[in-house]
Amino acid sequence: MQEQQKVGMNGATSPSGPLLCALRGEPLERAPIWLMRQAGRYLPEYRALRAQAGSFLDLCYTPELACEITLQPVRRFELDAAILFSDILVVADALGRRVSFVEGFGPRLEPLRSAADIARLAPTAVRERLAPVYETVARLRRELPAATALIGFAGAPWTVAAYMVEGEGSKEFYAARRLARRAPAAFEQLIGRLTDATTVHLRAQIEAGAEVVQLFDSWAGVLPEPEFLRWCLEPTARIVASLKEAFPAVPVIAFPRGAGWHYRRLVDATPLAGLSLDTTAPIAAVRAALPEICLQGNLDPVALLTGGPELLREAERIVGVLGRGPFIFNLGHGVLPETDPDAVAALVAHVRSLPLPAR
Amino acid sequence: MQEQQKVGMNGATSPSGPLLCALRGEPLERAPIWLMRQAGRYLPEYRALRAQAGSFLDLCYTPELACEITLQPVRRFELDAAILFSDILVVADALGRRVSFVEGFGPRLEPLRSAADIARLAPTAVRERLAPVYETVARLRRELPAATALIGFAGAPWTVAAYMVEGEGSKEFYAARRLARRAPAAFEQLIGRLTDATTVHLRAQIEAGAEVVQLFDSWAGVLPEPEFLRWCLEPTARIVASLKEAFPAVPVIAFPRGAGWHYRRLVDATPLAGLSLDTTAPIAAVRAALPEICLQGNLDPVALLTGGPELLREAERIVGVLGRGPFIFNLGHGVLPETDPDAVAALVAHVRSLPLPAR
Repeated sequence: MQEQQKVGMNGATSPSGPLLCALRGEPLERAPIWLMRQAGRYLPEYRALRAQAGSFLDLCYTPELACEITLQPVRRFELDAAILFSDILVVADALGRRVSFVEGFGPRLEPLRSAADIARLAPTAVRERLAPVYETVARLRRELPAATALIGFAGAPWTVAAYMVEGEGSKEFYAARRLARRAPAAFEQLIGRLTDATTVHLRAQIEAGAEVVQLFDSWAGVLPEPEFLRWCLEPTARIVASLKEAFPAVPVIAFPRGAGWHYRRLVDATPLAGLSLDTTAPIAAVRAALPEICLQGNLDPVALLTGGPELLREAERIVGVLGRGPFIFNLGHGVLPETDPDAVAALVAHVRSLPLPAR
Repeated sequence: MQEQQKVGMNGATSPSGPLLCALRGEPLERAPIWLMRQAGRYLPEYRALRAQAGSFLDLCYTPELACEITLQPVRRFELDAAILFSDILVVADALGRRVSFVEGFGPRLEPLRSAADIARLAPTAVRERLAPVYETVARLRRELPAATALIGFAGAPWTVAAYMVEGEGSKEFYAARRLARRAPAAFEQLIGRLTDATTVHLRAQIEAGAEVVQLFDSWAGVLPEPEFLRWCLEPTARIVASLKEAFPAVPVIAFPRGAGWHYRRLVDATPLAGLSLDTTAPIAAVRAALPEICLQGNLDPVALLTGGPELLREAERIVGVLGRGPFIFNLGHGVLPETDPDAVAALVAHVRSLPLPAR
């Protein structure tokens, strides 16, 4: 089991750190903390390195750079986890779709617009094409202190499919929702391809040294209930079941952003260790409804952006409520690019100073 | 009371139609139906008229045109309600902010970016500036058949404030959320101004002949719980309380899009007659949780766009579940511009043919 054999910077075997303890439901003195998009544009050292590199995907596929970027926030702040620097769309790239990232705009892909486009997708070559990602993971595990958990991740099939069909970000992802209704068999094929590719991608990350994996379903929240069950819950359950079979001790965290309606159903359908809550989740109600699972979240990144005493009060409120059960402090969405690194430092120090409430 | 005195096209006094009955919780043989954005770009007669007019706001402020556009779908389809053709941003216009609508892009406003910008807002002159809207309402009430309910509407303060601060539509409305955190006193002032203006605007519509009003809180779903309570629920409760005091018999429908977490709390806090559900609401759970209130919704506009037998099956599913209590058939979001009017006709005919399930 990964978490019992991990080897730290100093080469010594070490017990697992606080993040893995929280995911196993073990009581802790204080909440583990990491932040979605903790590596990235808000850090001057990231911007300096980014300016030297080629495309954003080049960064993701250059182990030396991706490793360095992953480590930057871990060096600056006392975080309990590092999350692999990569992107959810590397799986689309592995399926042969051209992916680019336009500064200030987000991802752009050649859109899949028909059943024929889906049928023409390249044979999946995840392990081959994404080998540099797994090399990054292996390097990271060697570099990281033993108590710092290494988190691998992937986009959930619906979210990756939504970008692949739409060709870019969207408020409502109407093109993807339209194709899913117009050509459900082809869309099922796309989701199936992505489910398999995502499983391979996460398995390879775990084999390379990831101790936890998180599935980002960033656009789960735009779907009506029957489609959420078909395109989000069912593929997620398949991925998690396959991972649990191969790696029973590796915890999986799901982040079905905007789909809090379905938390209970998701938790019942899949052996998740953690559920990452978005900013809108009413935390007292969710904690009461899901006392058993490790909840992660859910500070508003806007509160981190504005900082000050309000930020610390918000953090206290969240720790006081979610900390009544297994809990990992995080944001409810990624760090915003305009965030002041000093606000992040203040947040981390404050969360580390707060005792957890009695369970 | 409006609904008992209304005078139809033929000048005869008539009992209230099915929409008002549903909002009072009275049992019906079949579900009343209307559709959000039932007037608009998907109708060729709208596009023809739009091409002749000046700006979008000119349309809203020309009673003859706004009246004609409102009536277009009512003439085409057997709908149980007409909703005033207008825009939620007329209230921003009444507060002195320049508003324009760019084809294929949406609204643009000069953004409010600071407490100073908010302090400089023009004195509210809702009744004066929006007089043509009330004239449209009065004309409509004279033109409409007695059984066709006339729905007035406004944007809820948070949603209008979000556009005023952002200056345009957005996925996350970060600028508005940031200003609300950075300058809460100024933001409170903005929400207060909008709450008052919205109340005046809805009262004037009711006085002119609107028999129902709907509050569109289209961006309620981006807020964390404490901010939802402060910026959405509390102002909505103030507006509804003020309307109920003046017009106890006029039903109010709330549409807190994406904020289903808080339905129960909203219903408990405000004397709403109806709650409009967005596409993501799990209807069986919501119907069971809120047996008493009239629920409206929640067909996916994408299902209407794709049409065919699946559309009719979806409509049946919704009627079968939501129709177990007081219910109005509608979409979960507005009609999409690419929608085929024939699909709308097929949907309306099908919903009118479906018997409601036993309560």
